[in-house]
Amino acid sequence: MQSLVECVPNFSEGRRPEVIEAIAAALRAHKDVSLLDIESDYDHNRSVFTLVASPEAMAPAMFDAIRAAAALIDLEQHRGEHPRIGATDVVPFVPLRGVEMAQCVALTHQLGRRVGDELGIPVYLYEEAATRPDRVNLADIRRGEYEGLKAEIVANPDRLPDYGPARVGPAGATVIGARAPLIAYNVYLTTSDVEIARRVAKAVRNSSGGLRYVKALGLSVKGKAQVSMNLTDFRKTPIHQAVEMIRREASRYGVGIESSELIGMIPQQALLDAAVWYLQLNNFDLEMVLENRLDNG
Amino acid sequence: MQSLVECVPNFSEGRRPEVIEAIAAALRAHKDVSLLDIESDYDHNRSVFTLVASPEAMAPAMFDAIRAAAALIDLEQHRGEHPRIGATDVVPFVPLRGVEMAQCVALTHQLGRRVGDELGIPVYLYEEAATRPDRVNLADIRRGEYEGLKAEIVANPDRLPDYGPARVGPAGATVIGARAPLIAYNVYLTTSDVEIARRVAKAVRNSSGGLRYVKALGLSVKGKAQVSMNLTDFRKTPIHQAVEMIRREASRYGVGIESSELIGMIPQQALLDAAVWYLQLNNFDLEMVLENRLDNG
Repeated sequence: MQSLVECVPNFSEGRRPEVIEAIAAALRAHKDVSLLDIESDYDHNRSVFTLVASPEAMAPAMFDAIRAAAALIDLEQHRGEHPRIGATDVVPFVPLRGVEMAQCVALTHQLGRRVGDELGIPVYLYEEAATRPDRVNLADIRRGEYEGLKAEIVANPDRLPDYGPARVGPAGATVIGARAPLIAYNVYLTTSDVEIARRVAKAVRNSSGGLRYVKALGLSVKGKAQVSMNLTDFRKTPIHQAVEMIRREASRYGVGIESSELIGMIPQQALLDAAVWYLQLNNFDLEMVLENRLDNG
Repeated sequence: MQSLVECVPNFSEGRRPEVIEAIAAALRAHKDVSLLDIESDYDHNRSVFTLVASPEAMAPAMFDAIRAAAALIDLEQHRGEHPRIGATDVVPFVPLRGVEMAQCVALTHQLGRRVGDELGIPVYLYEEAATRPDRVNLADIRRGEYEGLKAEIVANPDRLPDYGPARVGPAGATVIGARAPLIAYNVYLTTSDVEIARRVAKAVRNSSGGLRYVKALGLSVKGKAQVSMNLTDFRKTPIHQAVEMIRREASRYGVGIESSELIGMIPQQALLDAAVWYLQLNNFDLEMVLENRLDNG
């Protein structure tokens, strides 16, 4: 079974298709990397790419993409609603299958050093790759955006990058990190009463005392009460744990689960973990799945 | 997402490693076919191969394997405990992903015609590919084994093959068919009373009035009551349906499910179907699984 890393780079271009295509072409030139998706937003003036590859193949491909973005995007000219600090703004590596978080952190250093040394772009490491507590959160690193960093980086030692020079050119700076896969997951309740969804969301989310890797909000969607969640580390707080807690909390109000929905993509393991838990399948191993044993899989 | 067919051919050789290896080499020469497993049994004098490939790649590879087996295995000399009718005894095609049963049936005709015409081996089609009701069951076709068929095929019009000549050479005849994937699945109960496992098995299995695609027995394994099942078509009788019926029947005796176990390999979809059912995930699509969208996956 091939080891797989996901990478979800954000580039500061959502308006010029030829620029987005040039960055995509730099990635597609790497035959061992799968470019699964590109989402561009005009107002944000930003594009989010989704890539999957082996750990070995990922960093060289991303280096070429960052070089292409630096050549084509000028932060002096860039305007958009979304905060940004560089042409290649954020590069999170995500362990997907057969890969430890430590390997993704190693990738951030490998890529960060090359981007700093060879492209002369300042690089900050964040989340699991952060070298200081005040760099764990992306928002802290991106404070003041490109314009603010440009002024501060030369004078403020707190803004010294992890790799590359302490000065910012028109490609800005790049934030590279490692994090667990994010799953966007909504649960609809058998009621239209949004207040019940809000109470259930409050019980289940980390910020108000619930499960550690759950963010949740109660919403009203298409006339139904919805508990909208981000599961930020499914290996530590699995989907079924969040769903069963919602079921229990909702039953307190005489309400059940009507259905649930997945937004975007999900690692195979997150769903298999749920099957294994509900079926009480004690001896399960990913290698038992036929497709995972294909030579090219 | 690449379409995938599984094939589980049984060859009448379990003692001479060089013969088994020569058949494997004929398959490995096809780079687009994954040979996942070979199980050889000395007493049965028989080997079971597990292959996965696209529908297009599978039949040519199997043709080469059947030709290799015919050149190396002489049924006049073959002795073993397991019933057999040919050097390549049985070739079931199994739809795995993105493939309809009808396509697997088409494969049996495509392969059967070539084996009959080019190798001069009589071919009988069975299960979903059967051309007559008395050829649905493998045991009916294999009646009398090689020796019996050799005598009957020349005289009895009932034994006229679907493809190839009405005479048997030293390679015997080959039975080719299409069937759903088989899942071997055991459920342990929270009791040592095997009588409860027997009653639950009786309630859940097709033969005594239970679920259509379930075969089940109550056994005592390692001091625990076990409901041992073969799920013969997980798309029509899914795993969770069988497990939840066992849970309900066992609760009638005040007993629960202690755990379950999977024997051998399972198609990804069978476990994802369980996750989707328990999580009530209404909008799920196999393409939502990241790994299924890889270029080479």
